[in-house]
Amino acid sequence: METDYSLYLVTDRKDRTEQEFLNIIEESIKGGVTLIQLREKTASTQEFYNIARKVKEITKKYNVPLIINDRIDIALAIDADGVHVGQEDMPTQIARKLIGPNKILGVSAHILEEAKKAKEDGADYLGVGAIFTTSTKNDANDVSIETLKNITKSINIPTVAIGGINLDNAHQLKNTKIAGFSVVSAIMNANNPKVASQKLKEIYKNLD
Amino acid sequence: METDYSLYLVTDRKDRTEQEFLNIIEESIKGGVTLIQLREKTASTQEFYNIARKVKEITKKYNVPLIINDRIDIALAIDADGVHVGQEDMPTQIARKLIGPNKILGVSAHILEEAKKAKEDGADYLGVGAIFTTSTKNDANDVSIETLKNITKSINIPTVAIGGINLDNAHQLKNTKIAGFSVVSAIMNANNPKVASQKLKEIYKNLD
Repeated sequence: METDYSLYLVTDRKDRTEQEFLNIIEESIKGGVTLIQLREKTASTQEFYNIARKVKEITKKYNVPLIINDRIDIALAIDADGVHVGQEDMPTQIARKLIGPNKILGVSAHILEEAKKAKEDGADYLGVGAIFTTSTKNDANDVSIETLKNITKSINIPTVAIGGINLDNAHQLKNTKIAGFSVVSAIMNANNPKVASQKLKEIYKNLD
Repeated sequence: METDYSLYLVTDRKDRTEQEFLNIIEESIKGGVTLIQLREKTASTQEFYNIARKVKEITKKYNVPLIINDRIDIALAIDADGVHVGQEDMPTQIARKLIGPNKILGVSAHILEEAKKAKEDGADYLGVGAIFTTSTKNDANDVSIETLKNITKSINIPTVAIGGINLDNAHQLKNTKIAGFSVVSAIMNANNPKVASQKLKEIYKNLD
């Protein structure tokens, strides 16, 4: 089945309890999120493994793919649906080799050359950003909407836009030919993650 | 071939240049180190991968096993000889499943129950400590020499002692039936890592 990238939630657990965190994920899926990326930058390996198992129970229930950020060991340990690697993570070719041909492999790209290389090295999709200003990733490079358009025009694998996308600015991504919005705070920090997801999905549908 | 655990170097790269770091590893092997564990707690995945590949060139040249601390993805990516997991890392059974039956699996243990469970779950050897006070790991629990003896007496897989072992205190581990010394600073910070390794090896040989 072809992967639906239209509304892609990247998690940011912060100091939430496990139950609060899992509830947000479940509500976001009920609201229309089509893909979950579990991102844990400070957890121990065992903590990451334990939370990943619990998130997988939810994504499995709703038949939504679960992608693990960076850590291929965690992805293999819980048999996740895929892995997302940044430019400082495992090289794309090695990641593909480790997860095999059938798992989803996403790669972050900030310029056309990175996007081209990612595709050549085995990426299934690209995450391009940060499109708007974001507080989630301090190390995020800025990417203009022109660069985003150039990438979607030149590289024929699905591209999701990421970085500060929210209900106020998402419509600015019209005519970019993106396969979806990748969001963090717009859903994770929403008062109602389900409603926020529904609204983002609606904006995506009306983009082009 | 049976693994020789007698002098086991756990690395601490700190702010050394890559060449300084690799030189210490090579000199330590020339001085008698029998096993290298590459431990990187702050590196990005790609940095860890790159340094691991370079360390492997050296360990391969001298036919010394290379063990990766915690990160099974790195171990698989560079085809290391094994993995060492702590109590906050991947559960032992999952680690064994991911690396397969033939790679070396080491597990940190601080009490007899952890040692017993590690063996049951597939560990090839145990790392027990911290035996002496150490500045390398702030989270290290203290383990008495009595506990160490109890573990080596009760659990019939090789046990290495770790934690603050140096030229001044190593002789205190006599009659503990350990399979080797696991050291960090005593070699990494030595003026002459080769000579320090030779001296530690000599102390180990005269332990029992």
